[in-house]
Amino acid sequence: MRETSSANPVLVEVVRGPLVESRHAGAIAIADADGRLVLALGDVERPVYPRSAVKALQALPLVESGAAEAFGLSDEELAVACASHSGDDVHVAAVRSLLTKVGLDESHLACGVHWPVSDQATRALIKAGRRPRAIHNNCSGKHAGMLAACVRLGFDPSGYERPDHKLQIMIAGIMSETCGVRLDRSGMGVDGCSLPTWSLPLAALARGFARFGAGQGLEPARATAAARLMQACFAAPELVAGEGRFDTFAMRALAPELFVKGGAEAVRCAALPGLGLGIALKIDDGAKRGDERTLAEVLAALLPKARSALADQLDGEMLNWRGINVGQIVASAKLKQAVAALDARPRRRAKA
Amino acid sequence: MRETSSANPVLVEVVRGPLVESRHAGAIAIADADGRLVLALGDVERPVYPRSAVKALQALPLVESGAAEAFGLSDEELAVACASHSGDDVHVAAVRSLLTKVGLDESHLACGVHWPVSDQATRALIKAGRRPRAIHNNCSGKHAGMLAACVRLGFDPSGYERPDHKLQIMIAGIMSETCGVRLDRSGMGVDGCSLPTWSLPLAALARGFARFGAGQGLEPARATAAARLMQACFAAPELVAGEGRFDTFAMRALAPELFVKGGAEAVRCAALPGLGLGIALKIDDGAKRGDERTLAEVLAALLPKARSALADQLDGEMLNWRGINVGQIVASAKLKQAVAALDARPRRRAKA
Repeated sequence: MRETSSANPVLVEVVRGPLVESRHAGAIAIADADGRLVLALGDVERPVYPRSAVKALQALPLVESGAAEAFGLSDEELAVACASHSGDDVHVAAVRSLLTKVGLDESHLACGVHWPVSDQATRALIKAGRRPRAIHNNCSGKHAGMLAACVRLGFDPSGYERPDHKLQIMIAGIMSETCGVRLDRSGMGVDGCSLPTWSLPLAALARGFARFGAGQGLEPARATAAARLMQACFAAPELVAGEGRFDTFAMRALAPELFVKGGAEAVRCAALPGLGLGIALKIDDGAKRGDERTLAEVLAALLPKARSALADQLDGEMLNWRGINVGQIVASAKLKQAVAALDARPRRRAKA
Repeated sequence: MRETSSANPVLVEVVRGPLVESRHAGAIAIADADGRLVLALGDVERPVYPRSAVKALQALPLVESGAAEAFGLSDEELAVACASHSGDDVHVAAVRSLLTKVGLDESHLACGVHWPVSDQATRALIKAGRRPRAIHNNCSGKHAGMLAACVRLGFDPSGYERPDHKLQIMIAGIMSETCGVRLDRSGMGVDGCSLPTWSLPLAALARGFARFGAGQGLEPARATAAARLMQACFAAPELVAGEGRFDTFAMRALAPELFVKGGAEAVRCAALPGLGLGIALKIDDGAKRGDERTLAEVLAALLPKARSALADQLDGEMLNWRGINVGQIVASAKLKQAVAALDARPRRRAKA
């Protein structure tokens, strides 16, 4: 097992009364399509598992294979293939129709079962006396998209979730090329939904998302596929996460200037197509409140509209059970300082 | 605002495949009733908010005032006054009967409303088409106990949750005496349930719990009150938290050798009456998985029965949605080293 220093700086502080009650250390990389780092705070070369933050990269074969076109997939179906969805009716319907178009059904999903992320969907199931199924799993759209790619590519869908399946080998290759690193089994973990999660440095992830967003550094078919997936997520941001969740409201407000996707254990990746930049960050301890607050701070410096679109995140107010303000989630001095320097730097526009 | 270094060591690592995916830094103090530190890992002098970890100290006036005896409170009612309960029927019933004995009702609770901690209780409310009330709040027992103390002491219960109310001033005094530090408003925050939470160092908290557990260093009436509260929690550990939760199963297995109570943002305090020791720890980032794993490691070294009672925590196996083992929550090398040293040290028995 690799060494485990915790030398990353504190990025986010949770303040209550006169004290910092809790703190979140982490690392963040912002890079262009050539891999030039515009910002590197913390250890951005240490491999991390991107988890669900790379679902859009994992969905590239769905478009590159021609499956999306051949099966006539809608924006909603492509967006849910890139999603960590809330399990609301709209998500379940999109996954079901995707599977139906491909000639498969829920029984093929290997993601396992959990209660919907959405309280509303959970309560509806409970009221109806029902249990959740694999289709409610936040990853069911990604799995459905992988099944569609298998069908189109003539791969046996059985065991599609295993690292030695042709589709997963293809995905590892695509991620390696897009991010400019060589992924291999020595750095692989198994995700919550049983798919492989390939570790790679935040710097490489940031470069990969710069390429994904702007199309630079990708072969034409891949750039087209990336643009198609992004366009689908921009058209249906509620499919990528769900109402009230960061990726949905951030893209609803900031697309097409921002593509963003979070993953478990506080990884979040973003593409800023207009600026030709990619962002990748991870909070060391896995706390979502840390990654959302960090990204909001960075986006406010890079995208003019972000300051109002993410006002609640930037404010970070914490209310207690009676609605009394008891504290605030704030950017650390170190993060603020890094962001201020970033803000002052003249930015290069991506080539068209 | 005080400075915010994150110099505390990593205590717990979350391993997935070949990598440490996430890590939790923190600090832990183990002290005797005289304040002698048996273990100090990380910064144990930095003030922290103990949150719900000190509910048993906050409940001392309930017994010291004579309220518990005068109102004929049961073990269940006293235990729920020390609880962060799950909101199951058994908890709601205990809080209701406590309030009834005192001549008050749910409308006096100032804790605010949240859905029960227990999934089962939440589902039961949803199925019945009902909403949670203040009595379902995990802190409702503590609030009910405070109301009972007010009635007994002749304090106007109105505003009992405010820091300038006579009862809260009394509680701050009791905490100051028990922990051997002076608490004041300059270090006060407001808790999720609207009560004051007074910051103090982990070293002082550990000393306070050593005294609470063994009675040493406390005036006789307070020692008697502490023993009565502990005995109630030992008799009804399911009232202190709930089924499947750490404090409940740990005390069920290890009482009377262990009293333990957790609080929000990953604080946990424990008393080991037989050893005359108190424990206080906080994970910097507020992650519960970090504080439970840390305490399990320490308890396994101090209490012979803990290794089997906390076997699941010590194993730390992480399963995914299909039940596949994907990783492990482990003690860091630094924590293991500190615990090994602790284990080797001859321990002093508390005087009877």
